[in-house]
Amino acid sequence: MTRTVTVALADRSYDILIGTGLLERAGAHVAALLRRPRLAVVTDEHVAAAQLPAFLAACKQEGIACETLILPPGEATKNFTQLERLSRWLIGQQVGRDDMVVALGGGVIGDLTGFAAAILRRGTGFIQVPTTLLAQVDSSVGGKTAINTPEGKNLIGAFHQPALVLADTDTLDTLPPREVLAGYAEIVKYGLLGDRPFFEWLEQHGEKVIAGDDAARAEAVARSCQAKADIVAADERENDQRALLNLGHTFGHALEAEGGYDGRLLHGEAVAIGMVQALEFSVRLGLCPGQDAVRARRHLARVGLPVDPADRGLGDVPADRLVAHMAQDKKVRDGRLTFVLARGIGDAFITRDVAASELVSFLKTERT
Amino acid sequence: MTRTVTVALADRSYDILIGTGLLERAGAHVAALLRRPRLAVVTDEHVAAAQLPAFLAACKQEGIACETLILPPGEATKNFTQLERLSRWLIGQQVGRDDMVVALGGGVIGDLTGFAAAILRRGTGFIQVPTTLLAQVDSSVGGKTAINTPEGKNLIGAFHQPALVLADTDTLDTLPPREVLAGYAEIVKYGLLGDRPFFEWLEQHGEKVIAGDDAARAEAVARSCQAKADIVAADERENDQRALLNLGHTFGHALEAEGGYDGRLLHGEAVAIGMVQALEFSVRLGLCPGQDAVRARRHLARVGLPVDPADRGLGDVPADRLVAHMAQDKKVRDGRLTFVLARGIGDAFITRDVAASELVSFLKTERT
Repeated sequence: MTRTVTVALADRSYDILIGTGLLERAGAHVAALLRRPRLAVVTDEHVAAAQLPAFLAACKQEGIACETLILPPGEATKNFTQLERLSRWLIGQQVGRDDMVVALGGGVIGDLTGFAAAILRRGTGFIQVPTTLLAQVDSSVGGKTAINTPEGKNLIGAFHQPALVLADTDTLDTLPPREVLAGYAEIVKYGLLGDRPFFEWLEQHGEKVIAGDDAARAEAVARSCQAKADIVAADERENDQRALLNLGHTFGHALEAEGGYDGRLLHGEAVAIGMVQALEFSVRLGLCPGQDAVRARRHLARVGLPVDPADRGLGDVPADRLVAHMAQDKKVRDGRLTFVLARGIGDAFITRDVAASELVSFLKTERT
Repeated sequence: MTRTVTVALADRSYDILIGTGLLERAGAHVAALLRRPRLAVVTDEHVAAAQLPAFLAACKQEGIACETLILPPGEATKNFTQLERLSRWLIGQQVGRDDMVVALGGGVIGDLTGFAAAILRRGTGFIQVPTTLLAQVDSSVGGKTAINTPEGKNLIGAFHQPALVLADTDTLDTLPPREVLAGYAEIVKYGLLGDRPFFEWLEQHGEKVIAGDDAARAEAVARSCQAKADIVAADERENDQRALLNLGHTFGHALEAEGGYDGRLLHGEAVAIGMVQALEFSVRLGLCPGQDAVRARRHLARVGLPVDPADRGLGDVPADRLVAHMAQDKKVRDGRLTFVLARGIGDAFITRDVAASELVSFLKTERT
């Protein structure tokens, strides 16, 4: 069974298809979007080995000619150098505004390719075919595209919605378990930020999602995509409620800036630690019952995710160094930090009233 | 007297202020747009010498702190390398989504800075302070931003509207006459594409506009901006009528690709030649009275603009080489050229029915 979640954005609305066997039927799914039977496909070396042949075969079956660019895997690919390379390759392929570029891969390929499509001829169509759990439940949905600079992650980018997302849960079977777990952290995020019953469902079924049960995966991915689609439809450009999706990300990005680019810390792992810290900071501020923070920490730890910086050897990063990273984070408005806190599991909210000193003091005392 | 032209784009509407002495009052004009009294100002070496002190003094008067980045002048600056440099500089200045970046200069500075603002934190505010005639009547208005790649001009960019345009006609006094003339070609374009009375006004007053008469300049700039504002308001993203603004540009860009990057041919000069060719091609196709093409050619030549490729030493570029450039131009849809032709002066229209062979044959016979 294929589930469909629609992201409702007027003339930029699109569907997310979720299920098994979607890669094998990809040609049929994309054909209706093409003005001519041609695709430029961007992927990385790992995904090219695991998933590209099935995608190309499915396109060939429908008479769609594909040209492919295979980039190096890893977060370091999301930079200006690869953006220029990819942009010039797309120009060389004579990709026009009505053509479609396919991002076949995880968040790195999706973010970079989506951004390249956004700026090619000031906006070219693209299709997300996410092949990691993280990309299926988060980065491929909602139109945020970006690259990194040495100053920080995702500081350069565009809002550019895909025309279609094909989330084939079969592609998750070849992922390293650590990557599946990291993606699972973002699934838990949707429960924590706005859907307590979903969090409770995950407490019961999360291990099946991680282990690879098809039905549990499809349910978890679809509920996550629906949650994100609802938020994006209400606030595409993050003027307001979309910032809820950053639960755990302010802490998380600061940690990633310290240890994320060398592979010590995956994005989802950073988010897991960040969510626990956001909840515990909320408890410290008297906003959230202590038991909710304990319960979130317990579930994340039980499935095997890190919940403290020390779990990934980052326990000794000075608190003011982390806060300095947060100040550079793009969630700055009038020089003040935007922060997602919670009144409890399923009840996150956005505040701009956190003083840096309070944050430093929390981070310092937390680890003593 | 300051004239105001409004670009009506719902929540992205903005004003273009046109007149003398605007630079000296810039601080007062921008203050209302700022959430904190800070500006990041981007300019080039030439403009820094001629105009920057007045702008900075005006900001200082209003208590606005400015940081300035001075880039090399010239079209070559509109590339990926300078985009990365500028982007990272803006990040380093901690420019947030609610801050404003100022583009003080001609089309190169405006296009590059506007693009950098478009992608910084997925969209940061910016203000255009165009200091060339070309930028005042064309590139600073309408939100097209871009950089070049070796494959062609403006193939990588974004639609990103400024929050304000300050077109101070005093800044034109220090321009080389050849640059003023090149800008004048784009003014003539508005007459040719949709406003015959304006073309006739230019036949009478064009030389005053070029010579530096304040009233004539303000009139010509304001009418040009109004024409562009109307078209952009109707079709911001060039799905349709906005392509009328490309009158002369399909030919023009092809010529520029041959001789434009070495300074032999300015953009406005290429457009002048391109407009004459578009009209004469329209005559050849039996669409336009011959006398209208003659009249346009005569006016452009009389003020001193080139009207044939040979006027700039490009008379021997093979026709099929030019057509190949056009095929790579971003105005490609389903592999077919979009072309602006005319039924007469003031009556341009868009067609997608021109065969490349017809074009090659026109270009070949035209020069024999």
